[in-house]
Amino acid sequence: MKTLFQYNWQVRYDWFSWCKTISEEELLKARVGGVGGILQTLFHVVVVEYSWICDLTGHPDIEDKFERQVSLDQVVSLSRKLHPVVSDFVSNWTDTQERQTVTVTVTGQAETFRYGEVLRHVIAHEIHHIGQLSVWAREFGREPVTANLIRRGLFG
Amino acid sequence: MKTLFQYNWQVRYDWFSWCKTISEEELLKARVGGVGGILQTLFHVVVVEYSWICDLTGHPDIEDKFERQVSLDQVVSLSRKLHPVVSDFVSNWTDTQERQTVTVTVTGQAETFRYGEVLRHVIAHEIHHIGQLSVWAREFGREPVTANLIRRGLFG
Repeated sequence: MKTLFQYNWQVRYDWFSWCKTISEEELLKARVGGVGGILQTLFHVVVVEYSWICDLTGHPDIEDKFERQVSLDQVVSLSRKLHPVVSDFVSNWTDTQERQTVTVTVTGQAETFRYGEVLRHVIAHEIHHIGQLSVWAREFGREPVTANLIRRGLFG
Repeated sequence: MKTLFQYNWQVRYDWFSWCKTISEEELLKARVGGVGGILQTLFHVVVVEYSWICDLTGHPDIEDKFERQVSLDQVVSLSRKLHPVVSDFVSNWTDTQERQTVTVTVTGQAETFRYGEVLRHVIAHEIHHIGQLSVWAREFGREPVTANLIRRGLFG
């Protein structure tokens, strides 16, 4: 579980570095599929991860509306700012928490989920959206960040 | 770990069902990014998953070249045929296997990986490629299969 979060964070920052080589126009351009753009996707994975962890920890959530005027630096800063709450929770995770439940209101309706279910949902959510970035990157002729989990030094 | 495999298998079969509503032309059409097409992606996740599990179990691997003439039914059949070897390994997985090592020759070079590293790589590999399918689906006006891990009954 922890390794998959570490993988996501490493890949996310690889994409942030990649974004520095891309024009702001391409980063903000409206695209088909997913949440509709490259920078918006990175913003989305940051705030969705944080939001779910807030549900599990009781931390107050933040506004998750993407502003078209946002810059890459602002998204990177947001990711760094929110990270301690997420990483504290993940690094202190124990298997005894797997079946604890949390009740959240998603689309106007209260739903109950297991903690273990939420964490895996968050993991899959980011990997899925990163897959979308990789297609968009190729569509304007750029090589995407590798999605390989091997060869990242995650296993010492 | 097991839950993320179950998620991948469920999502994969949701995509197989989705593919039944799509013309063969769209399924085989060459696309930008990933491995280059919808059916080819599904074939790719099936054979890559199997191939890694063969590396860990010693089962003989299969030919992984995608033939342009392949049908959806053939890919579904292949997935079903190879599944028992994969699911046996995953369902019998214990944490004591995490740091066992396997040496494989990937691109002409011998490399050593931890079993736990390989399994997580396989999980992330499929989720990433499924994210690519979701963009292509939207690009020709079709709603993709949901990538949500919650609400799939994976946690009883």
